[in-house]
Amino acid sequence: MPNIKKLLVANRGEIALRIMRTAREMGISTVAVYSEADRLSPHVKFADEAVCLGPPPSNQSYLLGDKIIQVCKELNVDAIHPGYGFLSENAGFAKKVTDAGIIFVGPSPESIEVMGSKLAAKQAVAKYNIPLVPGTEEAISDISAAKKKAAEIGYPILIKASAGGGGKGMRIVESEVEFEEQMQRAVSEAQSAFGDGAVFIEKFITSPRHIEIQVLGDQHGNTVYLFERECSIQRRHQKVIEEAPSAVVSPEMRKAMGEAAVGVAKACNYYGAGTVEFIVDDQLNFYFLEMNTRLQVEHPVTEMITGKDLVREQIRIAEGNPLPFAQEDLKIYGHAVEIRVYAEDPKNNFLPDIGKLITYRRPQGPGIRVDDGFEEGMDIPIYYDPMIAKLITHGENRQDAIDRMIRAINDYRITGIETTLDFCRFALQHEAFTSGMFDTKFVERYFTPEKLEPVFSDEEKQILAAMAVVFYEKEENRINPKTPKNTLPTTNWKNRLI
Amino acid sequence: MPNIKKLLVANRGEIALRIMRTAREMGISTVAVYSEADRLSPHVKFADEAVCLGPPPSNQSYLLGDKIIQVCKELNVDAIHPGYGFLSENAGFAKKVTDAGIIFVGPSPESIEVMGSKLAAKQAVAKYNIPLVPGTEEAISDISAAKKKAAEIGYPILIKASAGGGGKGMRIVESEVEFEEQMQRAVSEAQSAFGDGAVFIEKFITSPRHIEIQVLGDQHGNTVYLFERECSIQRRHQKVIEEAPSAVVSPEMRKAMGEAAVGVAKACNYYGAGTVEFIVDDQLNFYFLEMNTRLQVEHPVTEMITGKDLVREQIRIAEGNPLPFAQEDLKIYGHAVEIRVYAEDPKNNFLPDIGKLITYRRPQGPGIRVDDGFEEGMDIPIYYDPMIAKLITHGENRQDAIDRMIRAINDYRITGIETTLDFCRFALQHEAFTSGMFDTKFVERYFTPEKLEPVFSDEEKQILAAMAVVFYEKEENRINPKTPKNTLPTTNWKNRLI
Repeated sequence: MPNIKKLLVANRGEIALRIMRTAREMGISTVAVYSEADRLSPHVKFADEAVCLGPPPSNQSYLLGDKIIQVCKELNVDAIHPGYGFLSENAGFAKKVTDAGIIFVGPSPESIEVMGSKLAAKQAVAKYNIPLVPGTEEAISDISAAKKKAAEIGYPILIKASAGGGGKGMRIVESEVEFEEQMQRAVSEAQSAFGDGAVFIEKFITSPRHIEIQVLGDQHGNTVYLFERECSIQRRHQKVIEEAPSAVVSPEMRKAMGEAAVGVAKACNYYGAGTVEFIVDDQLNFYFLEMNTRLQVEHPVTEMITGKDLVREQIRIAEGNPLPFAQEDLKIYGHAVEIRVYAEDPKNNFLPDIGKLITYRRPQGPGIRVDDGFEEGMDIPIYYDPMIAKLITHGENRQDAIDRMIRAINDYRITGIETTLDFCRFALQHEAFTSGMFDTKFVERYFTPEKLEPVFSDEEKQILAAMAVVFYEKEENRINPKTPKNTLPTTNWKNRLI
Repeated sequence: MPNIKKLLVANRGEIALRIMRTAREMGISTVAVYSEADRLSPHVKFADEAVCLGPPPSNQSYLLGDKIIQVCKELNVDAIHPGYGFLSENAGFAKKVTDAGIIFVGPSPESIEVMGSKLAAKQAVAKYNIPLVPGTEEAISDISAAKKKAAEIGYPILIKASAGGGGKGMRIVESEVEFEEQMQRAVSEAQSAFGDGAVFIEKFITSPRHIEIQVLGDQHGNTVYLFERECSIQRRHQKVIEEAPSAVVSPEMRKAMGEAAVGVAKACNYYGAGTVEFIVDDQLNFYFLEMNTRLQVEHPVTEMITGKDLVREQIRIAEGNPLPFAQEDLKIYGHAVEIRVYAEDPKNNFLPDIGKLITYRRPQGPGIRVDDGFEEGMDIPIYYDPMIAKLITHGENRQDAIDRMIRAINDYRITGIETTLDFCRFALQHEAFTSGMFDTKFVERYFTPEKLEPVFSDEEKQILAAMAVVFYEKEENRINPKTPKNTLPTTNWKNRLI
């Protein structure tokens, strides 16, 4: 069984650092690669060796698969961990790595390839009885046949152009009475836009949730699921708050989803860590969407509730070890929430707000984890995803984890750029979130920039307090009511010498 | 049932901050008290309100119980959390607090009083069948009676002067042949030193371990144990490394110790969080030593393996809530290790090394918790226990937790003062520790200052790396082998542009 001694992490930022920390704990030496824009990044400083790939555009640095393989050969690297994004779901790269005699910490190139194509994935899972969004298997243009199919599926349904994209030729039909008219419109729109009037019909999920299942499989045919992550709070179709377990998934549903996810993994002979994404409707029916054949950004919430280190498991699996636990050994311990701290302005449609981290202090305390790749004083580069950090809290139950998260958000001190911190506090305190009754449309439905009142951070309060201590220490019995406006405990603000 | 709205923490440093964090997460507003030496401390800045008690000698500030109660009245404080040390085990203070109509977050004054006296504690537990170190119940001076008793107890035995102290009149007797001579010497030594020749005889524990059990009891008669903490690694009779669970405690022994600890708690009608300390011999027999009627410094390892927030439970219990879980709900998840980072010089007999924290950066990553009460640039005051921080790691098993701790120690960056970090790394890597075969004499037995080789921290390596990046970026294909000496992965140190 190969023993990985030196690991190259073909990634940057928080995930590169997070992977290297576990590697170091395992006694594995680490090689960082970096673009010129990242040369002073923590992941570069942390690594035992570091190699510059080129200038920041990713196609001249982080996406240079051949160059990365060359680095591995020159530095006697045993294995490559691709992280997420960049080359992580590139089957061609995985194959080249393997062909070069280097271990790819991830699934086989074949698994990546199958799951990289929606059609191939659908075909692969067909015999595993995995629920898919009900719809026509093939394009249809005959109206009465389509109407019959729509009645079978049940309204509302979605008509979409077979050749389409970008919403063209797409129609939501609420009930049978509208069907013919909408179908005709969709067909003619598709015809004029794409020169092809054929359409697909599928069930329209009115209030979709995004819930995914973490799986781990070894190279000996053992596959387990590590329960679900609820990822429905999104902005610009990208996740911003995740939690595990989901507030709406019952033990029975968890088992059914978990077993379906294991089925999907088996359908493509999967090994390594992977995520099976499901769309869940308001009746809590779940349908397979796709499989992400890599470590997920939000993997820490699963680590917090299972006590497993997913990177460690990935490396062990890549070495050929059998899984050290079976399904029945896995249990859920408490509840975990993650927020993504993006350099974005929620008051300006979540557009990136790049700049310097003038102040940067992390919250601390029991049940708090911060995964980041920046230090105070650093610039957030414009070339990459503007995620500064992931803030994860764990508590005995959902409310404890949320309360801890709000405290941690208030203690997080970032100045110099706008972030999603205030938005996340708003969302976590919103009744739709606390009740668990939300879907992927949370932001459109409930959020407007005015909802983010200006608040003083606890750090700002602390600075005021420190000044107050100095100032008021001499003035006996003077009460100094200067609590700044805050969404948290509204106590009086006093510093006294008695 | 009273609902605590405002909590005063009658303590300082890391424990004050740790308690206030949980209080804030529970929506409880917080009041700090502080000495003039601590006025810029994080616990003062964090609190919603802060009151200066006086100058640093503790008897003019943190020990001023009456003044603290007066503060509570003036600020409408509902409850006092005493932390550990200071007033936490002062039954008189607890009684005054309660008499003033303020909730004391801790046990009743009666429980504190009983467990505060070794004799009263022994009497209280008598009917609960708690194992005590075997010995004579009363002082003895008749040699033949003593010899008979010694034979019953079994050798080695310890003879100690009834009126004694400071080791005077104390004799270890290895076997029966030596007994008479040693007994005579002990009696005559006791006679001449104290004017009283009466002695006690008890079993001498040759290779003692210190293992303690965390208990939680509510005010409705429910008591549970939250398993053990192994606290045998000590220097100057004070714990420096703790872990949970212990490497040598079997499930059966855990249950027996846990049930004994619950018996001790019941013997004094205990409620709140408490710790029952046992001495354990090399045959793994355990004997009740004493009960600490407060939160323990090392409580985080228990929090890490049980997922419970002990401060939260303390507050809930003080409010009169029943325990939210039963014994069978409690499970051990993985393994946790804590090291105490003291401002001490292990090369100079662990004497305090007070000064300024010139650099202070905490390690980060999954499974790492730092409880501290300092920030970079602060002075460690000379007036108090020189503990800077507690560093706690959690892993799936003991080795993972230790590996993570060593990585975290290497990433901890403290300059300006000497600390116990290097000593802790030495201890954690020592075969006696990794094998679990150690006792409270670890330091005397294995440690000499020369064993602490100078090592470069990862941070120092990072600084070198950053310089190297800048320096070598222009020099293509140049290999730069400058790995500093380190106990961690000994890889080549290269920064290259290829």
